Amino acid sequence: MSAMDGPADRDRPTGRYSVAFPKRAWYPACASGDLGRSKPLAITLMDAPVVLFRDGAGRPQALVDRCPHRNVPLSLGRVAADGTLECGYHGWRFDGCGACTAVPGLLAEPAANREVDAFAVTEADGFVWIWPDRSSAPTGAPFALPALATDVRSGEVVFSYDLDCTMHAAIENALDVPHTAFLHRGIFRGGSAATKELTAVRRDLPGGVEVQYLGEPIGMGPIQLGARTGRTFDHWDRFFLPCVAQVEYRIDGWLRVTNSILHLPISPRRTRAWFVVRFWSRLPAATVKPIVLARGKRILEQDAQMLAAQTANVERFGGERYTSTDLDVLGNAIWRLLRRAEREEQAEAAGAAAGPGDEPELPPQSVTFRA
Amino acid sequence: MSAMDGPADRDRPTGRYSVAFPKRAWYPACASGDLGRSKPLAITLMDAPVVLFRDGAGRPQALVDRCPHRNVPLSLGRVAADGTLECGYHGWRFDGCGACTAVPGLLAEPAANREVDAFAVTEADGFVWIWPDRSSAPTGAPFALPALATDVRSGEVVFSYDLDCTMHAAIENALDVPHTAFLHRGIFRGGSAATKELTAVRRDLPGGVEVQYLGEPIGMGPIQLGARTGRTFDHWDRFFLPCVAQVEYRIDGWLRVTNSILHLPISPRRTRAWFVVRFWSRLPAATVKPIVLARGKRILEQDAQMLAAQTANVERFGGERYTSTDLDVLGNAIWRLLRRAEREEQAEAAGAAAGPGDEPELPPQSVTFRA
Amino acid sequence: MSAMDGPADRDRPTGRYSVAFPKRAWYPACASGDLGRSKPLAITLMDAPVVLFRDGAGRPQALVDRCPHRNVPLSLGRVAADGTLECGYHGWRFDGCGACTAVPGLLAEPAANREVDAFAVTEADGFVWIWPDRSSAPTGAPFALPALATDVRSGEVVFSYDLDCTMHAAIENALDVPHTAFLHRGIFRGGSAATKELTAVRRDLPGGVEVQYLGEPIGMGPIQLGARTGRTFDHWDRFFLPCVAQVEYRIDGWLRVTNSILHLPISPRRTRAWFVVRFWSRLPAATVKPIVLARGKRILEQDAQMLAAQTANVERFGGERYTSTDLDVLGNAIWRLLRRAEREEQAEAAGAAAGPGDEPELPPQSVTFRA
Repeated sequence: MSAMDGPADRDRPTGRYSVAFPKRAWYPACASGDLGRSKPLAITLMDAPVVLFRDGAGRPQALVDRCPHRNVPLSLGRVAADGTLECGYHGWRFDGCGACTAVPGLLAEPAANREVDAFAVTEADGFVWIWPDRSSAPTGAPFALPALATDVRSGEVVFSYDLDCTMHAAIENALDVPHTAFLHRGIFRGGSAATKELTAVRRDLPGGVEVQYLGEPIGMGPIQLGARTGRTFDHWDRFFLPCVAQVEYRIDGWLRVTNSILHLPISPRRTRAWFVVRFWSRLPAATVKPIVLARGKRILEQDAQMLAAQTANVERFGGERYTSTDLDVLGNAIWRLLRRAEREEQAEAAGAAAGPGDEPELPPQSVTFRA
Repeated sequence: MSAMDGPADRDRPTGRYSVAFPKRAWYPACASGDLGRSKPLAITLMDAPVVLFRDGAGRPQALVDRCPHRNVPLSLGRVAADGTLECGYHGWRFDGCGACTAVPGLLAEPAANREVDAFAVTEADGFVWIWPDRSSAPTGAPFALPALATDVRSGEVVFSYDLDCTMHAAIENALDVPHTAFLHRGIFRGGSAATKELTAVRRDLPGGVEVQYLGEPIGMGPIQLGARTGRTFDHWDRFFLPCVAQVEYRIDGWLRVTNSILHLPISPRRTRAWFVVRFWSRLPAATVKPIVLARGKRILEQDAQMLAAQTANVERFGGERYTSTDLDVLGNAIWRLLRRAEREEQAEAAGAAAGPGDEPELPPQSVTFRA
Repeated sequence: MSAMDGPADRDRPTGRYSVAFPKRAWYPACASGDLGRSKPLAITLMDAPVVLFRDGAGRPQALVDRCPHRNVPLSLGRVAADGTLECGYHGWRFDGCGACTAVPGLLAEPAANREVDAFAVTEADGFVWIWPDRSSAPTGAPFALPALATDVRSGEVVFSYDLDCTMHAAIENALDVPHTAFLHRGIFRGGSAATKELTAVRRDLPGGVEVQYLGEPIGMGPIQLGARTGRTFDHWDRFFLPCVAQVEYRIDGWLRVTNSILHLPISPRRTRAWFVVRFWSRLPAATVKPIVLARGKRILEQDAQMLAAQTANVERFGGERYTSTDLDVLGNAIWRLLRRAEREEQAEAAGAAAGPGDEPELPPQSVTFRA
């Protein structure tokens, strides 16, 4: 369902939300380190309860989080010595395929209806990834996090946050430049009265889209280095289907930062985000790390509050009714990709050709603005 | 929808609530002092989110509390130096008519769908008043608070409370005499065992109704002065469409108190009430004020708890099913006025004549009871 | 509605819950000691608000918890000196039949619609019992708690708990043996690695069903006495329509314990349970009592958490989808009795013959398992 704005935006019926959920794709389920060997982990994937655990070989597994016996969450159980998942109520055990391997106490009896549905999972780059569509075999690898140089001046910071908003709103926010001068006034952009014309150029990527910013002066908050030196950042914002936002800054020879944000749609209006910041600079990583972490969390806290207020307000008004301008360089483009992927997938599952899209028009490929 | 009791009360279908909302009338939005020059104020008017702010001239303004861009509440923003309301997310600005006066960063682009709906507001007697119907021009002035003599023996106390009940239940409670002996036992009436016959006489007022009590002995709680002296209060309870209850007590030459209660329907079952108590007596106002405030708040706390319990119980039973007696001298009369105003307004908006009413019968014009 | 599993369990439509409520039967309303002489007590009986109070003779009475005047809960009032229930808002009074005996202040006026519906109640064995069906006269006596010998070595412990689950889930849990080795691992069964074959034999009782366990070794948690001595418990689990579960253990000449669990369905998915443990043993009751209480509460806490998790998970999945095995010796049998009682009662009320049942098949009458 298309919820972003279009030509007749204000007259559209309400009750619309920018929620699209392509299911034949990898989504982050958890950070590898959050899934141990003895305790299972409960997650929610677009309202579906899922239990994650590691089998005897340490491989992650994912099952529907409901014991077929009395329907309690399997995530309340434990991983048995043989690497099966044991229900905490009556001790039924399940392997990674969801087959029931034991019903304690039961002597011979034909088994029926004791299996649990399983999800395909894989592990890469420090994350466990899940494939939501149980009717298709996974294809392709999960999103690859960018590799930076590995020395004392490079480092990684990871933190996560549950955002009360649609996955689309989270991604649009992560890749939106204009709000930084207002919502993050004084922290990020907007510290200086002087503004400058910038140009944003949008390009299609395979399974994604990017915007490159040209002419952005170097600076952050009150420190506006670029205004004096004339030096500029190289800056890209990117989206990769279905759930990755990425921001990259570079000053050749001085700095490179990538912030890859992996999103798990917990429900239509709640989204878990992992911020994986990888950086290289002239300074030792040990100096940079705490600054990145503190700054990142403070900005994130402000975004999270605004996104929650946005979601609550959209619900109070019974649906989204957005109005975009040329400054919204990525929002509609991301929505088009998500919505189209969902439509094509639904058509494929139904064995039919995808009908004409209901996505909004794209904004112009290049836009000049002040920031 | 009529929800007060009628002849076939107990057999009525449930699911009814005494909720009427005449929209072509002034309602209190906030106390003047609660609306400053820099921060906007969010209120809710019968479930509609509204943001109040003061423009450059200090005049109050009211807009639908949703930025047309990404739908966040404008009340999270701030009032800019030019007296426009600035959204806290991307800094869009709006004037008091709801016109968008700035989109920061945006160079030339034709504007469309950027305006916000505005409400008519006015300021009088220490309150900002709002006109809920956006399709009609305001007529008449807001309710005028009664002016008392201005000397050291007169004063004013104002306090507010959010009540979990319909506006009708709040007004009926404010003007109901019999409950004071039970709910406020020991504080208000009911302290003395001796009761006396009183007469209540109902009269129509322009856009309202009043009841005068005859023969009420002077006293409050344990102090029952009237029983000895034979002196009586002059006592009136009044309702003015659509949202004002008023209680007045007088002892000529000794005392005059008016309690005007202004109601804002936050939602069908939640009501904000401002109690504006103005008094004159033989004692200095500085002595009387703290007593009025403490006594008023204690009584109000008991009323608020009972009204919330009433609302919760009505919801548990799926609707109101009231039974009135002659002692309920104002409840049905108020409901008739509110409901008729709503019906006539709806007929007017539809360009039709109002159909026959569904309001309950009025109780007798005069009733004698014991108190 | 049948919600327990049947042959086509996994393919059943969801949205089913094991909720049956035979209304022509006695249910526990409160413990006798919880209902005093001056304060009424509010309970909820399958979502219906009920107020309990004692009349002038000390007899318990039960009314619908809503004053006919302005619908506030009568349970906020007090019992007047004459043993009537006085509303806390305007002081209306009601006797145990629900008749309105006073409207304070009101002079002559014909009364109409002032009565409150009443429930039949009775008091026995330390509990007040209520008959939910107001259209039928009570028949029979409430469930009789078993009497044990009365000497210093016998005692009684009573405690109660509100469980977030259907009454059926609470009763099945109370009478379920296999879960004790997992959910209560280390406290109850399951402390020893050695398991043994047991046989469970099911028998019909008048208005109920029981299972007797044969060959259960004496022991509890880490202490497994029976493994050495070869002595066994006598152990019965019983259900009595509509709301009583009972567990009995005996070692002739050494020990007898009955745990009678009385259930009040607060709502379809919330159940109040009173655990009435009566015991006799070789030890003084004063020594046994605190152990029974501490152990019982600890086990109950674990059960309550699991039952709440079960209910929440069933709701997340939109209904129950259980799979039973031969180890579920009582669950389906209890459901058949409850559901059949409800169907027959509904047919009787409609003056029709009960149609064919939709209850699931019974498990085998005798089952051998390991524990």
